[in-house]
Amino acid sequence: MKVSELGEFGLIDLLAKMIAEAQDGQPGYPPFLVGIGDDAAAWQGKNRTQLATVDSLIENIHFSLDTTSWEELGWKSLAVNLSDIAAMGGTPEYALVSLGLPDNTEVDDVSSLYRGMIELGKRYGVSLAGGDTCSSPVVMITVTVFGTEQDALLLRSNARPGDAIAVTGHLGGAAAGLEMLSRGLSPSAEIATSLRESINKPTPRLAEGQLLVGHGIRTAIDISDGFLVDLRHICEMSRVSARIDVDRLPVLPPVRQVFGDKALEMALTGGEDYELLFTGDSDHITRIQAESPCPITVVGEITGGNPGEIRLFDSSGNPVKIRQSGWEHFRKR
Amino acid sequence: MKVSELGEFGLIDLLAKMIAEAQDGQPGYPPFLVGIGDDAAAWQGKNRTQLATVDSLIENIHFSLDTTSWEELGWKSLAVNLSDIAAMGGTPEYALVSLGLPDNTEVDDVSSLYRGMIELGKRYGVSLAGGDTCSSPVVMITVTVFGTEQDALLLRSNARPGDAIAVTGHLGGAAAGLEMLSRGLSPSAEIATSLRESINKPTPRLAEGQLLVGHGIRTAIDISDGFLVDLRHICEMSRVSARIDVDRLPVLPPVRQVFGDKALEMALTGGEDYELLFTGDSDHITRIQAESPCPITVVGEITGGNPGEIRLFDSSGNPVKIRQSGWEHFRKR
Repeated sequence: MKVSELGEFGLIDLLAKMIAEAQDGQPGYPPFLVGIGDDAAAWQGKNRTQLATVDSLIENIHFSLDTTSWEELGWKSLAVNLSDIAAMGGTPEYALVSLGLPDNTEVDDVSSLYRGMIELGKRYGVSLAGGDTCSSPVVMITVTVFGTEQDALLLRSNARPGDAIAVTGHLGGAAAGLEMLSRGLSPSAEIATSLRESINKPTPRLAEGQLLVGHGIRTAIDISDGFLVDLRHICEMSRVSARIDVDRLPVLPPVRQVFGDKALEMALTGGEDYELLFTGDSDHITRIQAESPCPITVVGEITGGNPGEIRLFDSSGNPVKIRQSGWEHFRKR
Repeated sequence: MKVSELGEFGLIDLLAKMIAEAQDGQPGYPPFLVGIGDDAAAWQGKNRTQLATVDSLIENIHFSLDTTSWEELGWKSLAVNLSDIAAMGGTPEYALVSLGLPDNTEVDDVSSLYRGMIELGKRYGVSLAGGDTCSSPVVMITVTVFGTEQDALLLRSNARPGDAIAVTGHLGGAAAGLEMLSRGLSPSAEIATSLRESINKPTPRLAEGQLLVGHGIRTAIDISDGFLVDLRHICEMSRVSARIDVDRLPVLPPVRQVFGDKALEMALTGGEDYELLFTGDSDHITRIQAESPCPITVVGEITGGNPGEIRLFDSSGNPVKIRQSGWEHFRKR
């Protein structure tokens, strides 16, 4: 059935039912005063800092339905916002979704989209609290996530010379996955699954963000634009410089296996890995490494010098140059 | 200058500066713990109910740049969300904006867009707290507004048989304005301005929403889809029926002057008037009428009977039929 046959209100009813079925009576979903079906969502605020973040995914700009399934799209559209909450050290609570759809969109596809969102939401106790659907020339998903923070925030502006620079998980998987899918490469099934999940089903590092806060870390960003661009954001906002040992970067193993020498560039400049990039005292980071199930790798150091400058070296101390510095919207290349 | 020449981060810097200049040190803007430039906005929640709502405006679906200026578009994209907060009886506090723009968009136009948003935000003490910008095939604006509520909420589900049905302000102006602009009609300058503002610069009825709550009203909706469609939402969610005296509808006078007999249909079915439609005790409404600077008109009564059914009569008691029932996305007509 087409969306145009079901109609907007039919679509809202369908989605509201899907969400209610997924959430009603489930532990971990705080009750709303007002949920889907009224003019706005409402909930009782607690005595805590509220967090909010918004991101849009637009067809043929941020994703292609040739390389991303509707279910993956739903997962990812929520994941990128949860990642922003993770990068603040916060706990996500609720999401609002604004969905723009071409009139000939299949309703089953919209259901799959929501299934992906609900699956991820369940994993982290995030309620879908309502939103808006409308006609659009291309698929467009804007998710707003609200969260709270109790103890301290991870900011981009808190890096200090002498801080170690570290990242969660592995890098380069998203760029490699996108290239594999768009060029139609066929590595082994295991590698293909790993790379496809890297680009289409990123894991927001929520537990890690909260662990960082608990261990005294105060500086972090999520890697959405690429390691180098996001590190530059930290350096500019903290008025510091950085040096990176590129040989220590935790490149995702399948990326090296499929792309060889190009893997390092993918890890440095490919966007959308949604790992946390953070800085802090080495002793704190050692304790975090011991406690975290997710790998944590130290890759360099914050220094004084030109604010925003990043120098790359290999493990022998030789300078390294790379070709481009990551993803930025609008800018002509 | 084109957006593509300035780049995303240049654009964010520009917008952050505009917003900071408009808000810094101004009374009525609650301070953020974290504002624009980090991964998410953060603020200290108070001991009150938080409200949140989101709406998207998409080029050539919700608006055309032939008939809406960029500044009007900015105003309107915030106004439609503030109207949702008004329809809950709440107070808006913060907004997040996700902006999708074609690469060849003029930066001056984006500044105008924000000027319109800032102008309306200032009027109601609403901070622009950050957001997201990205490339898009058409202009796309998604605004999320956060607010609070202290005493009680206006819901769609609280209407009871015997309630009077009333509306704020006048109806039909938005539909008439859109028709005037898209057909290139040229009424007198005064009428043209009134109709243009009706469609492009709606006034969110925030003070009125709060006044309703204060006088014991508990049922309201904002007229975004059209008087009849939105009244049907109230009737369906409250499991009641309604009868309307169409001769009592407060049709905006210029609509009658330009469109004659078609004015009534515009008032009943035209969307986007963003007036409040509410129900409640007649005595309460009489007191509200005495206190409100904005006209309040009683137009009918909530009755028992088929949930969602709306019967129209003229003042002689004869049944009235109209051709269509309002605006709905996706549905083929």
